[in-house]
This record gives sequence, structure tokens and C-alpha cells, in this order.
Amino acid sequence: MINIIQDNINEYIQIIKNRANTVQSDVSIVVEKILKDIKVNGDNAVLNYTKKFDSQNITNLKVSKEEIKNAYTKVDDEFVNALKLAKENIKSYHKKQVQNSYITTKNEIVMGQVIRGLETVGIYVPGGTAAYPSSVLMNAIPASVAKVDKLVMVTPPLEDGSINANILVAADIAGVDEIYKVGGAQAVAALAYGTESIPKVDKIVGPGNIYVATAKKMVFGNVDIDMIAGPSEILIISDKNGNEKYIAADLMSQAEHDILASSILVTTSMDLAKKVKSELKNQVQYLSRKEIIEKSLNNFGAIIVVENIDEAIKIANIIAPEHLELMINEPFIYLNEIKNAGSIFLGYYSPEPLGDYFAGPNHVLPTSGTAKFFSPLSVDDFIKKSSYLYYSKNALNKVKEPIIKLADTEGLTAHANSIKVRFDL
Amino acid sequence: MINIIQDNINEYIQIIKNRANTVQSDVSIVVEKILKDIKVNGDNAVLNYTKKFDSQNITNLKVSKEEIKNAYTKVDDEFVNALKLAKENIKSYHKKQVQNSYITTKNEIVMGQVIRGLETVGIYVPGGTAAYPSSVLMNAIPASVAKVDKLVMVTPPLEDGSINANILVAADIAGVDEIYKVGGAQAVAALAYGTESIPKVDKIVGPGNIYVATAKKMVFGNVDIDMIAGPSEILIISDKNGNEKYIAADLMSQAEHDILASSILVTTSMDLAKKVKSELKNQVQYLSRKEIIEKSLNNFGAIIVVENIDEAIKIANIIAPEHLELMINEPFIYLNEIKNAGSIFLGYYSPEPLGDYFAGPNHVLPTSGTAKFFSPLSVDDFIKKSSYLYYSKNALNKVKEPIIKLADTEGLTAHANSIKVRFDL
Repeated sequence: MINIIQDNINEYIQIIKNRANTVQSDVSIVVEKILKDIKVNGDNAVLNYTKKFDSQNITNLKVSKEEIKNAYTKVDDEFVNALKLAKENIKSYHKKQVQNSYITTKNEIVMGQVIRGLETVGIYVPGGTAAYPSSVLMNAIPASVAKVDKLVMVTPPLEDGSINANILVAADIAGVDEIYKVGGAQAVAALAYGTESIPKVDKIVGPGNIYVATAKKMVFGNVDIDMIAGPSEILIISDKNGNEKYIAADLMSQAEHDILASSILVTTSMDLAKKVKSELKNQVQYLSRKEIIEKSLNNFGAIIVVENIDEAIKIANIIAPEHLELMINEPFIYLNEIKNAGSIFLGYYSPEPLGDYFAGPNHVLPTSGTAKFFSPLSVDDFIKKSSYLYYSKNALNKVKEPIIKLADTEGLTAHANSIKVRFDL
Repeated sequence: MINIIQDNINEYIQIIKNRANTVQSDVSIVVEKILKDIKVNGDNAVLNYTKKFDSQNITNLKVSKEEIKNAYTKVDDEFVNALKLAKENIKSYHKKQVQNSYITTKNEIVMGQVIRGLETVGIYVPGGTAAYPSSVLMNAIPASVAKVDKLVMVTPPLEDGSINANILVAADIAGVDEIYKVGGAQAVAALAYGTESIPKVDKIVGPGNIYVATAKKMVFGNVDIDMIAGPSEILIISDKNGNEKYIAADLMSQAEHDILASSILVTTSMDLAKKVKSELKNQVQYLSRKEIIEKSLNNFGAIIVVENIDEAIKIANIIAPEHLELMINEPFIYLNEIKNAGSIFLGYYSPEPLGDYFAGPNHVLPTSGTAKFFSPLSVDDFIKKSSYLYYSKNALNKVKEPIIKLADTEGLTAHANSIKVRFDL
């Protein structure tokens, strides 16, 4: 179900890198039509698509306070407590990311940068089996730490016109202000353009299917969007001291997401490689997503055997995995060598699900090798900055020549003129 | 040449907002073909396009050290000094933006965020009349403050196969590591995919024509790109104390960029409005870009007369201008009311060109109303972050139940399993 490879590692890396490259031009045509329709027809169009794709039982797009209150009666206390504990951890981790406005004053010159939270943010939450309460927390909490004024959530309703109770409770705990029953490209369009009942937002975040992703890409520029997510990865580095049970379990926790997910062990020990392979076969029997896991491991999983940890880290930096587990004795020694990874899990007791659900760092991470230039979702994604500057007449007078020189060199005489008129030059 | 308006302000705002909405699908087809060609044929294709579009006299794509040395002999000392002064200001302003890595330790839990500069960044610099040395500084310096390992510049050669000396000198002063003679979509493709001689980069920044912009949008995801720039704006707020000469000059310094540029005065004084209008007619006579300025002011310029400064600020926040000048007596009083603006210029002696060239804040700013969610180019645009976490066995043991609960609620049993195997559950 998983291959052990020692040679042709580059070939395998190419397979991993290319697994997301499927262009679907028919999707673009459908999405473009939906965007236009929502832009022109607003709520009417939103209701039509929602009835067509999700539920006939929709009259009111907005989730009522009563529906949220009701949702709490449908979930157990243990779940609510777990969400609240996770919320505290996520909030406390993200508070460290808050950037402050700054100001400098010197020689009759004042300059600075003002940082503000975005006014309105839209969070997309998928329906069906991919409706993850943890994703609601991970998207909403950094926005709320960034002091976003209004957090709007959209999610497709179930057939009976209701929203999954787990999602409603998570949204309430995370501090979402308004929730609307709409999904797909129509939800993205409603957030991007605004309708009679759904507010236009400044930024749309959250995962979705190919229609949602395509719609987000199309409205980018009109609003901001978060990163473009591809299939995800875990890469585990371990030596002969690795525990095959833990490694197998962690590889499968990634593989169960998606048949396109890629789970990779890079180890210095052929003995461990073989043990992990057999452990995978053993543990998968008891897991509900056995089929997805087997397909994912078979197509995009690998156990790569290398000479030493340095070589393993080199491979990790090339793959730039979303999740990287350093399952070795002294993991901190190597932390600084990891140049490209979304989130790094250190040691034997820091498995990926600890980060996915609970510890505090965000689980919205750069996928498919984009950790080379993208970063985990953070407070920075929900702020906007303005620079400002003030010069006194005296201060401007001192620097007028070099400014005029630069403007003239660029052939922009009206720029030069703007300095000149102030000093009758 | 410019209209004074008091009513139907919303209509005017709509005209401003829609001025960039021109879709050119034929451009996409051309660009797609070029991208594919470069991806497959590398340097050969780059050379072919460069010969076709820019210069027959190209054999070596890379600018030599000698060419850079020669460039200094073609520019005057005053220009070099002006660049160096500007560099120091820009560097010192951007250093304030540097974010530090952080680490927290508590109860056998270690968490943190590592911040690194990107490995390789590509800067696009247009050729011809839009070859601005100031843009080289504004793009390269924040990258260098962010500790980017390698800065690569691309720019189309002149017909004789050389590069504009001003640009070469600016690149050298700004700390660019390598310069290649290639422009257009082919340059973006070369940076995105890498060729035999041009390195693949992690991010592409810098302005360009519609082919460059389209290519950047197409390679986004494969590499990161900076914001998508549209036509630019200045909005000046003034009361009856405003100086009509300064205001007219500043409006035109924006208008000279582009016939799509939008220059707006919002004032509480009809008297000032009329004086500015007449001053525009007067000053424009002496400016080299008279025609562009007149077209821009005529089509997208406006003098809006309002009741009070609060109303003016409300309009500014709706338009979200790239540049905002507060030409009033006590501008700092209103700084906090400005929610949406790229860069804010305070008082009578802080004209836009001071910021464009010299003071320190970046001149790469969100245009066309995107200041609602985009920010000035900054050090943040050249970093990547990784989160990390470590839990001891003891620490994980204490939180295993809520994690398992959340995983089970989401139906992700392999996630739950990864915790369970560690405690024989």
C-alpha cells in the first residue's frame, strides 16, 4: 500500500508536485455565469441556486438567533468544552502575531504606519462531510484577534434547510457575527458583491470545493482572498529510534483527508521503514476512512530511506510540506534547518492532530509546496496598513533638490512641479 | 478640464471604481502561449521573444558587471546622490516593519513562529518611458530588509541591446544581485519556471503592462506575486485655508501618470474649488505631459464640494484612494478617521512626490479602492512564516480527551487514532 524508495527520489517528488495540476475549464464557465447572475439579481439568484443545489426548504437566508440557541441542545457538553479549550489556545497563540502601529518623529518629520483590522470578512464553511467545526475556529479567531469589525459566515444548508449544529455552535463560540445559508460559487459571489441581505465583504477566507476555489480566484482583486489551497501533505522525519506505531498513525491522519493527500516518511533506517509499512497495514483495518487512506498512501505516499538526517531535511526543504513532523530525540537542534514548511511538529508527542484541533497554531497552512512563499493563516491576513508622513516646510526645503532631480530624471515634470510651486522655483 | 460637483457624488464614485474594468481575453491567449513556450523551451524561447519584441542585439541575457560599471559613467553625480539619500530613508522606514520570530514555553509546551526572508525574489522593471529608478528602490529595499537571499531583476533591453543606465545604477544601489535583459510575459514565465540561465524565484513583484500583469496572475500559486495594480488615485482634502497652487500641482502630479489616473479634490470651500480649477489651467501649460494630464482630469478628475471635513473623510473612506493628502491646518487630528487609504500625506508641505521618491514609506500602494483590504508593499511581503509546536508526553496526556472528541465529532477517526496509539487507548 506504500512504497519504500531509495533511488529516483526526484521522480517521486515530481509526482507529488504535479498531483494538483488538473485544469477544469468547464468549471470556469459555470462559475462565471453564477457570479454574473448574483451580481445582477442579488438575493433572488442566491435563493434560486440554493434551492437548486442544496435545499428546497429555504426562505430566510440568515440564520436566526433561535437556530443558534437550538443548535446547543443538539450537541454534547464535552464537545462544547473541547471547542472552548481549543478557542483559548488558538486565541492566545495568535495574540503574539498582533503587529502594532508605529510612529517616528525627527527633525520636523513625522512618519508611521497605521494598522487596522479589516472591516468585514467572509468565512466560507463547506457543507456535508467536510463541515469541520475546527476550521471555523481556525478562520474566525485570527480575524477576531485582528479586530475585524464584522465576521460573516456562509455555509450551504442541509436538505431540510438547517445548518449542521456542530458548525453553528463553533461559529457562535468563535465569535462569528452573522451566518447565511448559502454555499458554492453563489456564496462567494454574494460576499464579493453584496446582495440585499448578505453584506459585501473585504476578504473571503476558508476552504471549499473546485467551484468555490474557482469563484474565489475570479473575485480576487474585487475583494481579497486567502491562499489558494491544494491537496495537503505530511512529511515525517525519523531515525532508528522512531516509533512505528506513532509514525503509521500520523501518516494516516493526513491520508484520510483526501485521496490526493500525500503522506511521506523520510527515515535513516530501513528497519523502521519496513516496520512502519507493516504497521500501516495493521492499523488501517480499524479506521473508518480505510479506502481513502489506502488510495492516498498507494498513489502519493512514500517511505524514503536516506543516509542521514541532513539528507532528510534537504528533501523536506525541497518538498516544502504543509506539515512536518521531526520525530527524533532532539528535534530543536534541527528547527533552524527547516527552511520550508507550513507547521513543524517536534518530538514524539506532538502529532499533527494536536495542531489541527487544539494547540494554538493555525491549521490553515500552505499546501503543495507553497510553503516556500506562503505562510500559515495568521492575524496578518486580517489587517490592512496605511503609511503616513508629515514634513514641515523647513524639512521639505532641505530635501527639495534630490526630489526634483529624481522626478526630472524620470521625465515626470508634474512631480517636480509639485515641489517647485511650494518654493516658487 | 475638471468638473466641480456637489450632487450625484455616488455616480462619480461609480465612474472611478469602474474605470479599470476592461477584460481583454485576447491578451490571455497570447500570454498563455508564451508561458508554455518558456516552460518547455527555456532560454531559447526567452531569446526568441526578446529578439522579436525588444532587440535583435541580444546574445547574453545576463547583465555583466562591466555593463553596470559603465552605467555609472552615463549618469550624473547628483542623480546618484539623490538615489543614495532616498535609499537610506526607505531602508530606515522599512526596518520598523521587521517582524521577529517568537517562542513561548509553559507547562512542558513549546510553541512559536519562525520568520524568514524568501529565498529568491524577482523584480520586474518596465522598459521605455515607464522605466522608473524609484520603483527599483521601492521594490528591492524592503526585500533586502527582509533578508531575501537572492534578488533578481528583469527588464526589457533597449533596441541596441543595452539597459537604461538609470535603472542599472538604481538596481546596483538597491542591492539587486542579478539582472536579466528580458521583459513582458516571457520575463514573468522565466522567473516562474526558471530557465538554463534565469533562476526560478519564489515571488515576482513590480509593475508592468497588461501582458506582464496577466502573466503574473496566471503564474500565481506556482509562485507568489505582489498585489494586482490598477490605475492610481490621489484624493486631496482641504478647507478654505488650502493653497490652490499646491493643490493644483499635486493633483497633476498624479494625473501625469496615466489617462486612467484619478485626481480628486474634496473641499469645504466653493471659492477654493474655483481657484484650483483656474490654477490647473494655468500650471498645465508648462508641463511636459500636458495631454495626459488634461485627459485624466477631464475623464476621471473631480472637485467635490462638501459641507464639512467629516463628510470629506467619509468620501475618502468610500473611495479608498491610493494617495490621500490632508491639506488642512491640523491634519493629525483626523489621521485616525482615515480607515481606507494606501498612503496619507499630512499638511501643506508633504506632497505626494515626497513619498513617491524620497521620504521612506513605500510608493507601491493599493490602487483602485483596494486599500480597503490591500496594504502598501512592505517587508511583510518578502517573508515566509512557519509555526512550530512541541508537547511533552505529559502535556499531551492532559489534553488527549478534547482532541479525540473533536476528531471523532468531525468523523476523522485516523486523527483520533494518532492520539490514541500514543496512550494505548
